[in-house]
Amino acid sequence: MSSSYYPGLENVIASETAISYLDVEKEEIVVRGYDLIELAQNVTYLDVAGLLLEGSLPDADERNKLEERIKWEYGLPQNICSILRLLPKKTDLMDVLRTGISALASYDEELEDRSKEANTRKAIRLLAKVPQLLANGYQAITEQAFVEPRDDLSYTANFLYMITGQVPSKMEETIFDQSLIVYSEHEMPNSTFAARVIASTQSDLYGALTGAVASLKGNLHGGANEAVMEMLLEAGSDEGLETLMLSKLARKERIMGFGHRVYMKKADPRALLMKDALDALALEKNRSDLYTMCVVGEELMKREKNLHPNLDYYAAPVYYLLGIPIDLFTPVFLAARTIGVSSHVMEQHAHNRLFRPRVHYTGPRNLHP
Amino acid sequence: MSSSYYPGLENVIASETAISYLDVEKEEIVVRGYDLIELAQNVTYLDVAGLLLEGSLPDADERNKLEERIKWEYGLPQNICSILRLLPKKTDLMDVLRTGISALASYDEELEDRSKEANTRKAIRLLAKVPQLLANGYQAITEQAFVEPRDDLSYTANFLYMITGQVPSKMEETIFDQSLIVYSEHEMPNSTFAARVIASTQSDLYGALTGAVASLKGNLHGGANEAVMEMLLEAGSDEGLETLMLSKLARKERIMGFGHRVYMKKADPRALLMKDALDALALEKNRSDLYTMCVVGEELMKREKNLHPNLDYYAAPVYYLLGIPIDLFTPVFLAARTIGVSSHVMEQHAHNRLFRPRVHYTGPRNLHP
Repeated sequence: MSSSYYPGLENVIASETAISYLDVEKEEIVVRGYDLIELAQNVTYLDVAGLLLEGSLPDADERNKLEERIKWEYGLPQNICSILRLLPKKTDLMDVLRTGISALASYDEELEDRSKEANTRKAIRLLAKVPQLLANGYQAITEQAFVEPRDDLSYTANFLYMITGQVPSKMEETIFDQSLIVYSEHEMPNSTFAARVIASTQSDLYGALTGAVASLKGNLHGGANEAVMEMLLEAGSDEGLETLMLSKLARKERIMGFGHRVYMKKADPRALLMKDALDALALEKNRSDLYTMCVVGEELMKREKNLHPNLDYYAAPVYYLLGIPIDLFTPVFLAARTIGVSSHVMEQHAHNRLFRPRVHYTGPRNLHP
Repeated sequence: MSSSYYPGLENVIASETAISYLDVEKEEIVVRGYDLIELAQNVTYLDVAGLLLEGSLPDADERNKLEERIKWEYGLPQNICSILRLLPKKTDLMDVLRTGISALASYDEELEDRSKEANTRKAIRLLAKVPQLLANGYQAITEQAFVEPRDDLSYTANFLYMITGQVPSKMEETIFDQSLIVYSEHEMPNSTFAARVIASTQSDLYGALTGAVASLKGNLHGGANEAVMEMLLEAGSDEGLETLMLSKLARKERIMGFGHRVYMKKADPRALLMKDALDALALEKNRSDLYTMCVVGEELMKREKNLHPNLDYYAAPVYYLLGIPIDLFTPVFLAARTIGVSSHVMEQHAHNRLFRPRVHYTGPRNLHP
């Protein structure tokens, strides 16, 4: 047995993967050979989805076919809509999504087929249905009418439309699309790891994704973007944010949206991209005060703790200005990450070894009933 | 970064724990200091549940209080019953359980409280409700009337009663109780690991358990007990089983119910306990042919592959003779393990470090869109 114990498996290699890699030295997020930031600046979310699924960037024709296949899979079974309406009105939206994805599993005729081809088709179905589960789940919990998908809109414009009920501007669509790309894949975060652990029993894609939803809900993971926005709203102004952050630091409370285990002391390039997006969007929406406030918070954390903002810190105010309800920030992260998690599950099924680690036992011995 | 890579984290220490430990040298399953087999021979499942939750065996008074608290929590919300009825009739029972537990989360007023006290109360609620979810889920899928819990029966007798509609004999109750004990806890199997990984984001107990259900469904894990029973039924006789096993071995197919990564070449003491239980139960039910057939299979695998039976190999025919539908074998395993998983989630919340390992990247580099 390995003699060393690394709490949280910090720096322990858990898997081989050809999907993505955080190159901390070069500060590059490598996704199937590409720099994730270059992808966000040059292609669309569906191109990245195709890249993650197939291993190469789709050409224009392949991309259009992927979009057609996704749109063909739009729509939820009537019973799923009924289940969403039956959930208590106080249900956390991540729990709505978890129940919805779990229930959706048995509508997939290929659920138990773990071949690459069947898993690819399932991932495409999930790409089509998870945004609607998220939007209709929100509408069920808040007792509003369901917004149905519109296939005359792009995938990304429709996603935002189903949430807000408004067709987004070109700028809003582009920024939301970029955010989906930077959330799409990120090596081996807790949720992806949870999904691979589950998939390694030869369990199915929907089950593995259910585990990823449960993981991403935690406030040390996906839940951070909602916590950031609540902090910004509570602060209300530059001075308010400084006061709030300093008092949190004095109480040794964790401030969400800063630092990342793998990036260590370096910047998160996704945060820089979303910072630029926030700058542009805030100008357009006459809310440059929000951008300025975020920069004040960033500078304070650099000065006081030498910590850089992570993606959640700048994605949160971007989503806020896009009109996304705060309760949906983490569900949107999950929807964007669904394709990354699906790719990891496919890779796990293709090169499987059951995850079954050991423990250091610290309890008593030799007791008798 | 650690330079070595152990696929499936084999022999890697993932956590410290005071809950349980597989002592491979002494062939002992240690649960909070006790030998699991001694527990199964001397106390009841609810005693073991109390031991897992509180760290010490309850005295008679504490045990009665625990049983009272559980019975007070019997019953499912009406909307959960409606959701069970809305699921497609072909839904896998593990998926029914996953959706049911996920949906049940938002009925728990203490869902987001991760204190030891609140987690203990949640674990007790799950002990009360998971067997009913499993039984009523089965009844929903097979379009039968729901069997409601009866609090004049013991916890274990009621569990079996809700599944079969028959009050079990004392012998059936004792054997089922022993099976629940030996399934209750087992160090760090995939499902427990998945739950701890999820809980380490500070996600909640229900979410972590949802991930464990998804994991346990896989046929490299909990799904094995159902596969064993299907093999025994397909074989039909001693000669049939020999022929079937030999042909599977010739085709290099995996035969479920044999071997275990951690036990290696040694025997699973839980299997030996269930073997004795099968012997007694088969005699009582005039089905000693089934016991004999299992022994024939055990001896063949020892001779041909030097593999010992694991728990699933003997638990499967025991459950069959207890009148449990095969589709419920893995859900019963999950119900029994709920208390073990809950204890691990509580320990993870109490001594947390986010699980976030790294990867060996094997894909391309330096591509540009």
